[in-house]
Amino acid sequence: MASKVTVQKNTFAESLAIVGRAIASHTHLPVLGNILISKEESQLRLSATDLTIGVSVWMDAKMDGDVGLTLPAKTLTDVVNSFTEPEVTFSVNGKPEAALKCGTYKGVVKGMEAEEFPKMPEFDTSGGIPIDAATLKEMIRAVAFAASVDESRPVLTGVLLQMEGKTISLAATDGFRLALHKTEVALSLEKKQLIIPASVLKEVLRILSATKASTVTLYLPSAGSQVVLRLDDSRRVQIVSQLIDGKFPDYQVIIPKGYKTRTIVDAGELLKACKQAGIIAREGSNVVRFHLQPGTDQSGKVKLLAASAETGESEIELDATVEGQELEIAFNVKFLQDALEAISTKRVVIETNAHNTPAMIRPAGCVASPTGEEQDAYRYVLMPMHIDS
Amino acid sequence: MASKVTVQKNTFAESLAIVGRAIASHTHLPVLGNILISKEESQLRLSATDLTIGVSVWMDAKMDGDVGLTLPAKTLTDVVNSFTEPEVTFSVNGKPEAALKCGTYKGVVKGMEAEEFPKMPEFDTSGGIPIDAATLKEMIRAVAFAASVDESRPVLTGVLLQMEGKTISLAATDGFRLALHKTEVALSLEKKQLIIPASVLKEVLRILSATKASTVTLYLPSAGSQVVLRLDDSRRVQIVSQLIDGKFPDYQVIIPKGYKTRTIVDAGELLKACKQAGIIAREGSNVVRFHLQPGTDQSGKVKLLAASAETGESEIELDATVEGQELEIAFNVKFLQDALEAISTKRVVIETNAHNTPAMIRPAGCVASPTGEEQDAYRYVLMPMHIDS
Repeated sequence: MASKVTVQKNTFAESLAIVGRAIASHTHLPVLGNILISKEESQLRLSATDLTIGVSVWMDAKMDGDVGLTLPAKTLTDVVNSFTEPEVTFSVNGKPEAALKCGTYKGVVKGMEAEEFPKMPEFDTSGGIPIDAATLKEMIRAVAFAASVDESRPVLTGVLLQMEGKTISLAATDGFRLALHKTEVALSLEKKQLIIPASVLKEVLRILSATKASTVTLYLPSAGSQVVLRLDDSRRVQIVSQLIDGKFPDYQVIIPKGYKTRTIVDAGELLKACKQAGIIAREGSNVVRFHLQPGTDQSGKVKLLAASAETGESEIELDATVEGQELEIAFNVKFLQDALEAISTKRVVIETNAHNTPAMIRPAGCVASPTGEEQDAYRYVLMPMHIDS
Repeated sequence: MASKVTVQKNTFAESLAIVGRAIASHTHLPVLGNILISKEESQLRLSATDLTIGVSVWMDAKMDGDVGLTLPAKTLTDVVNSFTEPEVTFSVNGKPEAALKCGTYKGVVKGMEAEEFPKMPEFDTSGGIPIDAATLKEMIRAVAFAASVDESRPVLTGVLLQMEGKTISLAATDGFRLALHKTEVALSLEKKQLIIPASVLKEVLRILSATKASTVTLYLPSAGSQVVLRLDDSRRVQIVSQLIDGKFPDYQVIIPKGYKTRTIVDAGELLKACKQAGIIAREGSNVVRFHLQPGTDQSGKVKLLAASAETGESEIELDATVEGQELEIAFNVKFLQDALEAISTKRVVIETNAHNTPAMIRPAGCVASPTGEEQDAYRYVLMPMHIDS
């Protein structure tokens, strides 16, 4: 199996960066620190997996024979990134090592046999669901952070993907907040639910940001324990994710059905105020009290109050439009900040009922359509924190 | 002692960043996490110390009374950095806390009494030695990294500052390499030697980079255990450093007096080759073998060879001018990289004698003057590593 492979340095380096997203930083299985390099039809395929996520990239290469070995991701990536000439050649001779050449550099990188690498599953890639890449990025960015990092309840470390009719939605909750994003697609979809690890979706976001793909195609293999995403750009990228088994909590029950106080405030100003209040609040569980004082046309006020026996106190006052009842309610200010960082509209709406019931945060402009349905709806439900009043 | 102080936000934020360089990340004495704020003549003085380095900044402020308290550096800096309006007011009322106001923000930051703070020494500031700030920066950058980080031999964690005649030099060594930089000054100086902690000089470098001062003035208080540096820019900055007590090793004895092989090579290409060789070499103590093959006018060769039983091997070949004997010599490639990063000339000279004696690395162009003296001399002496030949 001797073969000489010639690849473009930039393509090789970019492809290694993409598959590298699936390399775990700590692994008990040494071969998982390696990238599987194989010839598939006339292309070179690079694959990596941490057993939860698997990423493959197919790239163009000149090859005069077969290729099949694994090489350590970090060494190979660092060597290729160090090259400044446009073309890299690497030769294999049946041993699990590759001889690399570029400009004045000659080297050998040792790896492991391809057989040591976990089998990469094959999928039936018919019946895929195309999703606009920019929309998927926005949905992941707005939802995935709200998943739990606590492994004791595995379903909460996942993001619920729901399909029904022409709607796809993502939902995540850690028990303190819920983030929910819906989008409409052209196709009518079979009703389905699956739980994808939030960590995988965060890698999907990074990979999407590193490519120019405009569409992502979603496949649900019939075996049912995995989901496959494909990006076709100048090269093909495939991401395979294990699914989380379990029942996602029925989050509909915690979404507030109405409000007694509705606050509309500049999103950028509120984010700045949250960061300022957070300086004092970080000394005490990030509790910030929000005082909502009614007033129409920006004559209302939102006051953010933070206090710590050790560090001091702060008060920030913002002009706002506040309808309904006056209210004082406390939030974990970091959790509110997370939502504000995910919202791109100029203003944000906060709907509240009482100091001990959940608040709804959503982009302003995201209002009910004439038919009563929410359009392009991002919703963030935040549990308040206890305060002595 | 009630007083209202008005300061420019940018000046305040920049000054806090400068004094913040003296705040230790871990300290057993809580007040050392604070900044001392005091009125001195018509200016506001900010001071911080970790007991090794002390930094003070004097800044313009409108004050209607006296000021004297300490405030936590991190909280104060974060609050001031969060402001976006041009003016900050802070009021003190005799208690160890300050009421801060800027735009829509009102807050109180709690601190500790000024009396808790270590006494800031006063110095006789006559007879200072002016040094060009850009030269001092270059000298520190080229020398301080070579000091030891091992606290078991305290003198080696310092940089030796020597003054004699019109020459100022800095020297540092960790036993594996020696970095030495000399500069000429206008004044004729009294002969003196002092050992300044390398960690302090690295902070001096950061402070110099954050200011526009063109001159640094050095004072040697007669008490003899400290050195004082002053920068006068739009505001005055004073850095006080404890000196390290002890005898610095006589490094002259390890400076090679001649060479059997002299290699002149492009500094950028050699640095790139060192980084490439380092990828394999990092698996094995960073040993890289340098094969120097004689040839005039770039017809010689420098080969960098790295090998690791686990990872593989690499060979990088550079064109060079190599005079004298052929030689194979091994270095810790990271230590050679450090020197190359400090050298700004296009080419670099490596002078060697044998595989087991120190090599001299210096910028090309830095050659003996007609009188036999080195001009603007940076010299780096590097011990070779053992290789089986």
